[in-house]
Amino acid sequence: MNLNLIGKKNHEENKIIQIGNLKIGSGKAIVIAGPCSIENEQQIDAAANIVKKLGGHILRGGAFKPRTSPYSFQGLGEEGLRLLKEAGEKYGLPVVSEVMDTRDVEMVSKYVDILQIGSRNMQNFSLLKEVGRTQKPILLKRGMTATIEDWLMAAEYIAYEGNEDIILCERGVRTFETYTRNTLDLAAVPIIKNLSKLPIIVDPSHGTGRKELIRPMTKASLAAGADGVMIEIHPNPCEALSDGEQSLNFEEFHILMKEINH
Amino acid sequence: MNLNLIGKKNHEENKIIQIGNLKIGSGKAIVIAGPCSIENEQQIDAAANIVKKLGGHILRGGAFKPRTSPYSFQGLGEEGLRLLKEAGEKYGLPVVSEVMDTRDVEMVSKYVDILQIGSRNMQNFSLLKEVGRTQKPILLKRGMTATIEDWLMAAEYIAYEGNEDIILCERGVRTFETYTRNTLDLAAVPIIKNLSKLPIIVDPSHGTGRKELIRPMTKASLAAGADGVMIEIHPNPCEALSDGEQSLNFEEFHILMKEINH
Amino acid sequence: MNLNLIGKKNHEENKIIQIGNLKIGSGKAIVIAGPCSIENEQQIDAAANIVKKLGGHILRGGAFKPRTSPYSFQGLGEEGLRLLKEAGEKYGLPVVSEVMDTRDVEMVSKYVDILQIGSRNMQNFSLLKEVGRTQKPILLKRGMTATIEDWLMAAEYIAYEGNEDIILCERGVRTFETYTRNTLDLAAVPIIKNLSKLPIIVDPSHGTGRKELIRPMTKASLAAGADGVMIEIHPNPCEALSDGEQSLNFEEFHILMKEINH
Amino acid sequence: MNLNLIGKKNHEENKIIQIGNLKIGSGKAIVIAGPCSIENEQQIDAAANIVKKLGGHILRGGAFKPRTSPYSFQGLGEEGLRLLKEAGEKYGLPVVSEVMDTRDVEMVSKYVDILQIGSRNMQNFSLLKEVGRTQKPILLKRGMTATIEDWLMAAEYIAYEGNEDIILCERGVRTFETYTRNTLDLAAVPIIKNLSKLPIIVDPSHGTGRKELIRPMTKASLAAGADGVMIEIHPNPCEALSDGEQSLNFEEFHILMKEINH
Repeated sequence: MNLNLIGKKNHEENKIIQIGNLKIGSGKAIVIAGPCSIENEQQIDAAANIVKKLGGHILRGGAFKPRTSPYSFQGLGEEGLRLLKEAGEKYGLPVVSEVMDTRDVEMVSKYVDILQIGSRNMQNFSLLKEVGRTQKPILLKRGMTATIEDWLMAAEYIAYEGNEDIILCERGVRTFETYTRNTLDLAAVPIIKNLSKLPIIVDPSHGTGRKELIRPMTKASLAAGADGVMIEIHPNPCEALSDGEQSLNFEEFHILMKEINH
Repeated sequence: MNLNLIGKKNHEENKIIQIGNLKIGSGKAIVIAGPCSIENEQQIDAAANIVKKLGGHILRGGAFKPRTSPYSFQGLGEEGLRLLKEAGEKYGLPVVSEVMDTRDVEMVSKYVDILQIGSRNMQNFSLLKEVGRTQKPILLKRGMTATIEDWLMAAEYIAYEGNEDIILCERGVRTFETYTRNTLDLAAVPIIKNLSKLPIIVDPSHGTGRKELIRPMTKASLAAGADGVMIEIHPNPCEALSDGEQSLNFEEFHILMKEINH
Repeated sequence: MNLNLIGKKNHEENKIIQIGNLKIGSGKAIVIAGPCSIENEQQIDAAANIVKKLGGHILRGGAFKPRTSPYSFQGLGEEGLRLLKEAGEKYGLPVVSEVMDTRDVEMVSKYVDILQIGSRNMQNFSLLKEVGRTQKPILLKRGMTATIEDWLMAAEYIAYEGNEDIILCERGVRTFETYTRNTLDLAAVPIIKNLSKLPIIVDPSHGTGRKELIRPMTKASLAAGADGVMIEIHPNPCEALSDGEQSLNFEEFHILMKEINH
Repeated sequence: MNLNLIGKKNHEENKIIQIGNLKIGSGKAIVIAGPCSIENEQQIDAAANIVKKLGGHILRGGAFKPRTSPYSFQGLGEEGLRLLKEAGEKYGLPVVSEVMDTRDVEMVSKYVDILQIGSRNMQNFSLLKEVGRTQKPILLKRGMTATIEDWLMAAEYIAYEGNEDIILCERGVRTFETYTRNTLDLAAVPIIKNLSKLPIIVDPSHGTGRKELIRPMTKASLAAGADGVMIEIHPNPCEALSDGEQSLNFEEFHILMKEINH
C-alpha cells in the first residue's frame, strides 16, 4: 500500500479535523445524527432540534439518494440541501450530506460543512478527484465490498488532489449473512488507526440495518477506538421515505445518548 | 424486482442490439477483444489487426482507467479514444470504451460505438442516468458485489432515461477465494436470460484474473448461453501497463478463436 | 500448497478411477443421478430405472442427511443404504452415498461403491482420515466456504492415509448472492485440472439450488472440462422430503441427457 | 427458525452455566485463555499460572488440532489432555479443549470441564448429537461461513439430545477481506442475546488473526454485551507450534487484563 499522504509515519500525530469549534479525531467521540433522507422542513427541523438538545455534534441528511431502484424516492435535491443548511444554522450544528455527481460538487459545497462520498461511489475515481480539489472535509464511506486497502487508496486519491481532511466511515461489508443488512467490520477501526493518521467513525445504522442493534454496536464502536458514530434518526421511522427500519425514533436516540455520555 | 422496461414479459422476444451489420443477442456469439489500456498507436493498431484477422467482432480498449491507486497509470484519456477510433475505422471494427464521469459522456460518445460502465460505477446512478440519455448502446458490467437484482435495477435506471440498448456483462464477484481475482458467476447467464430480455456477455479475463483460465471459461460461458465474450489481449502481456497477467498474447488468442469457431 | 500425493507433477498422467467397467477421469463425462434422500423402495427403484435407461452411470441417494435443523427429516439410515444397494444391483449401477460419522465408515462401505464426504464435513479431519483407510473411492465435495487450497489439502488428508482414489466435486460456495442457493465456481474445474491429477465433477443441483439452471450449468461444466456431473432427480420433486426445488423430474432429466449426449 | 429449546421465550431468563463456583452468563464477563496447542508440560503450566495470577477464569489448550494440512502439527492427543487437566487442577482452573471425533467424546470428557466444538465441525451433526448426550457444558464455535440461523440450529441439535448447557462463541466469518484472518461479526452478540437464552463469548484471536487487534476487539466485544472472551496466549508466541501470530505473550496479556478490569 502506497499511502504517501494519509499513511501513519513514525511518531506522526493523528490528524484532527476542525469544523468551527468541533474537533474530530481529538480523542473525544462525536455523534453525527439525522434522517436518512431530508423529507420536508418540519422533519429536518425536528431532527436538528433533538440532535442539538441531546448533545449531538453534526446534523446529517440526504438530499441526493443513491437508491437501488429508479422507482424509489430519489431525494429532494438542492431544495433538500437548503432545508438542511437552514436547520443546521438555526441550531448551530455543522451539516453533512452526500454528493453523487462530479457536476454537483461545487453546488453541494455551498450548503454543507462536510461532503459525504457514499459506499456505492467509493471507487468513483472522478468524484474522488473532484472532492479532492475542494476545501471541505470529506466523509468517505467504505464500499460494500472494499478491502481496507481499497478504502485507504480511495482516501489517498482525495489527498492526492490536495485535500487531506478526510474522515473514514466504516458502514459494514457485504457477506453471506442475511440477518443483518451488512456485516459491520469493527476490526477496521483499530486497523485504520494503525495504518493511517485519519480519523474513523462508524455507522451502525447501515452497518446492521436493524434498529435494535444500533445501541450495542455504538458502544462497541467507541470501545474499539472509533472517533465517533453516525446514527439515523427520524421523528417517525415507520413513515420514513427511506431506511425506516434502521432509524431510531427520538426516544430511542435519547436512551442511546444517555448511555454513551454516562 | 420492478423490471418494467428490461424485464422479460410473456412471449416477448429477446432484444437484439444492432451496430452496423453486427447483431448482439441474435443467437450467434460475438467476441469483443483488445487491450486493457490503450497505450500507443502501434499497440492498438496491432490489436485491432489481429481481432479483425481472427474473426473478432468489436475492438475494446481503455482510455479512462479506474485504478485502485492514484499512483497507477490512469489511461491516455481523449487521446486514447482518438487512437481507438482510428484503429476501429481502419479495420472496420466497432469500438467500446469506458466512461467514468458524467461530464465526459458526450465527449466519449463521439469516439465510441458502445459506452462501457465499469464495475466500480455500476451503482453510480448519476452516470447511469447520463448514459441513459444518449443513443449509444451501453455495456453494463456487473459490480463486484452486486446481486443479480442490483445489477438488473442498474440497467433499469438506464432504460428509465430512454435508452434500452443495454448489454449486460458478467465479470465475476468478490468472494473469499483468493486463487482467482474474482469468482466468475456463470449461473448469472441463464438467470439473466430468464428474467430479462437483454443480451448478456461474459468477461473471463477480469472474471478469473488468470490467463490460463480464459479458454475453458470462454467455452463454459458460451455453453451456458452467453451472447458473447470480452477478452483482454495484448501484443506483449508482460509489458502491459495494466492487467498483463490476465491478457492473452496473440498466439493464445488465435488458439482460443479456433476453438470457439471450430 | 504441499500436494505431495495428489498434486500434478511434471508429465504425470491424470488419475483414472475405475469402478467395474466404469472409468472416471478418462475423458468421457459421467453422470451420477438419483434422489437427494432415499425415501422408500419404490422411489429409489424408479430413480435407478430411469438413470439406467437414459444412460446415466452411477446412482446416488442419501441415507444419512446433514440437515440444518434437527427437526428436519434425517434420512432412513442403514435401511436406506440397503434399498440403495438393491436398486443399484438390480439395474447394474454402482452407488454412492454420504457417510457422516467415523463410526459408520465400515458399515456404509458394505453398501456403497463410492463413499461421499459432504460439504459440511470437508474439514472433518477425523472422518477424512477414516475414509482414507478404506479401499473405496471417495467423492469429496467442496466445503461451502473452502478455498481451492483448503479443498485440495482435504483430499491430501485422505491420500495421506493411503487412499488416492478421490473424486473432487464442485458444488458452489457461499457468497452474498441470494438468488441462487450457492454460487457455482466453475473456474474451479480448470484450476483443479492444473494443480492436481484427480478427476473433478460438478453438482449443479446444489450449486444453484434452482432446477431451471441445472441444464445450462451442466453444459457449462462439461465445456469447462469437468469429468462428470451429479444431478438430483426425483419421481415427484414437489413431494420430495428434501431439496425438491432443485430436483429434476424424469422428463426434465430426459431432456438433459439428450442434450449432453447429442 | 425453530428454536424450541434454546430460543428466548417471553420473559424467560437467560441461561447461566455454572462450573464449580464460576458462572457464565451471569452478567460478569469471563476470560478463557491459554495456548492454541498444548505443547509440553512447562508451556501449559506457565500458561495456567499466568491465567490464574491475572484473574482469568478458564484454561484453554488444544490437544486435537484441526489443521488445514496433514503435514502440520496435529496436537498431542490424549497426552495433551492429561497435561491440561493437571495444570488446571494445580491452579484451580476449569479447562476446555476441542473434541473432533464422535469416538473421542467419552475419553475427552474425562479430562475437561467444557467440551469445545470447533468451527470446522459446527455442522458435523453426528458430533453435535454425541456431545448432546454428555453432561458437560459445550462451547460451540460459529462456523466460518455459518449464518446466525445455521449456528443457532447447531446449538438446537445439541439441546435436542438433552444437553442445554451451551456457550456460543463468535470467532469471525470468512469474507473477501484479506487483511484479517476472518471478519469478526460483533453484531452477532446482541443478535444472539435477542434470539436465544444462551450465553455468548467472543474469540478475538481467531476472529482477527492479528495480535495487535486483540485488545481493542476484546473491549468492543464486552461493550457489545458478550459474556466473556477467549484469548490465545503463549509464553513465546514466535516459537508456538500453531497460531503464533495471533497469540499474546504474557506481558501483552497482562496489559489486556488490566484494561478490562480497570
